[in-house]
Amino acid sequence: MNFDEQILNYKNIVNEKLNDIYLEGPINIKEPIDHILKGGKRFRPILCLLTCSSFNGDKDNGLIAALAIELLHNFTLVHDDIMDKDDLRHGNPTIHSKWNDSIAILSGDAILALALIHLNRLTKDKDLIIQKFNEALIKVCEGQALDLSFENSNKISEQKYIDMIDRKTGHILGLCSEIGSILSNNNNTQHAKLKRYGILIGRAFQIQDDLLEVVSNQKKMGKSLKSDFLLNKKTYLTIKANSIDRDIVKKCIDISKNDFNLGFSSYRKFLLDNGILDEAKDLVDNILKTAIDILDSLDMNDKYLYEYTNLILNRDA
Amino acid sequence: MNFDEQILNYKNIVNEKLNDIYLEGPINIKEPIDHILKGGKRFRPILCLLTCSSFNGDKDNGLIAALAIELLHNFTLVHDDIMDKDDLRHGNPTIHSKWNDSIAILSGDAILALALIHLNRLTKDKDLIIQKFNEALIKVCEGQALDLSFENSNKISEQKYIDMIDRKTGHILGLCSEIGSILSNNNNTQHAKLKRYGILIGRAFQIQDDLLEVVSNQKKMGKSLKSDFLLNKKTYLTIKANSIDRDIVKKCIDISKNDFNLGFSSYRKFLLDNGILDEAKDLVDNILKTAIDILDSLDMNDKYLYEYTNLILNRDA
Repeated sequence: MNFDEQILNYKNIVNEKLNDIYLEGPINIKEPIDHILKGGKRFRPILCLLTCSSFNGDKDNGLIAALAIELLHNFTLVHDDIMDKDDLRHGNPTIHSKWNDSIAILSGDAILALALIHLNRLTKDKDLIIQKFNEALIKVCEGQALDLSFENSNKISEQKYIDMIDRKTGHILGLCSEIGSILSNNNNTQHAKLKRYGILIGRAFQIQDDLLEVVSNQKKMGKSLKSDFLLNKKTYLTIKANSIDRDIVKKCIDISKNDFNLGFSSYRKFLLDNGILDEAKDLVDNILKTAIDILDSLDMNDKYLYEYTNLILNRDA
Repeated sequence: MNFDEQILNYKNIVNEKLNDIYLEGPINIKEPIDHILKGGKRFRPILCLLTCSSFNGDKDNGLIAALAIELLHNFTLVHDDIMDKDDLRHGNPTIHSKWNDSIAILSGDAILALALIHLNRLTKDKDLIIQKFNEALIKVCEGQALDLSFENSNKISEQKYIDMIDRKTGHILGLCSEIGSILSNNNNTQHAKLKRYGILIGRAFQIQDDLLEVVSNQKKMGKSLKSDFLLNKKTYLTIKANSIDRDIVKKCIDISKNDFNLGFSSYRKFLLDNGILDEAKDLVDNILKTAIDILDSLDMNDKYLYEYTNLILNRDA
């Protein structure tokens, strides 16, 4: 099976299993849960399953963990979308905008409960994997807490920003590749390397997301871009822009409040004029090079993880 | 040690351990978490620890589970208070009213993460206890979902109401006594009996809460009573009132919107005139009698669980 066939295969398996994850329950949470679980590219479970396969890991347990992680990811999306006032996700209305905040809080909670119930079905390395899962869960809460706190400041350093996105995005991807490794006969050094690989993938993914918000469009991204900018959400690009002119982003946001396109294009022009877009692209390239160096140091059955790395690099939405 | 000394002792241990549960983390979630964890009567961990002690259970693991359950309970309080728009809890402002909804969502999530991390420290019966914990977690989400859905109907049967409160309140108390039993050398029949005992305690507790909302006052209860009534939250009393006159509660709520005291006292008068308060008291007595029958069928080291049952019956807030 070539790479495209393999990831399509994994995606289909994951989608099919997610369909059956919550068959009975009060309709006012079952419907929103079905709604959010329909969408998504399944990057996380695919990474877990690819890592498992590259090291002859236990496939059945890999799939259990992969599904639990996809549910964990969806739990964070549902709650983050409330906090960030985002009304689009995967091209569909978010739960809180289609229903209301209460239903979204509760559906998110229930999705996490389903993740935990599913994870408890593991028959191999359960104790260690649950521990890693819980660590990623608290990290992702902390990442979102830092993200919220950064909204009130224009003096966030690049290092603090990277730490925040590692907690918010990186650790869940690191969890995927680490668990794939744990379920194989790898040793602790290999587990640590693969965890690091996943964190770097997550970091590159997030910075590329920051870039796409400026160079792509809402339809392609399948999520609302306006609200993040107006909320003064930090991105790699706003951090860099503020480091050149502390007031530039604030000025552009102020313009955007009256005329979004004018404010946002002033911001985009500042990024271009100061070479910040190129800087961000270079950073993504460098992070992914480091990730590939890690792969080079490992002995794998196949080249799928290399192709997965390129998939992240080449996505346009 | 007499009963009062024993529960004070347990309460102190639980409070001390909760103090150390989250020492490092972003300040915007650490402060709210510290805030909510300060308050509460610790009924749930005390039940777990008393059950453990009554059957010579493993005390260290009992304490780990007890703390995880108290955290699970607090997670539900923080999120439910947002949904129910309650602004007082344990006599203090709720997290969403003192901070905001985003901080409350996130703090609740992090408290659940802390519960899971703590639970994973178990060294005995971990697998089974985690499974029971997760089942209670999904039940409590479903109970809250039903509670929300009931707000839009005046035709909820007593049976549906009992099912809802069992999921929302009963199962966590059932979890406490069941885990105390699991950590002892009890058999499955005894586990099931003690789980049932806890569910009944939770059911009596909730119906008595419904009663206290009418006969007690906000200061004693330490939480806001107005919002539940105005939201048309179902209680045993409103269910019973609606079964006599389908429009009575709605009429009183409508009056309350202009003059809360007038509407609420009309409602209280209807309950008194129709013997509904006495009916509720009788039901609480009967549920607790059934709970005591269960205790009578068990061979215990001490009489603490009997005194615990009376504690629930005799509380006035």
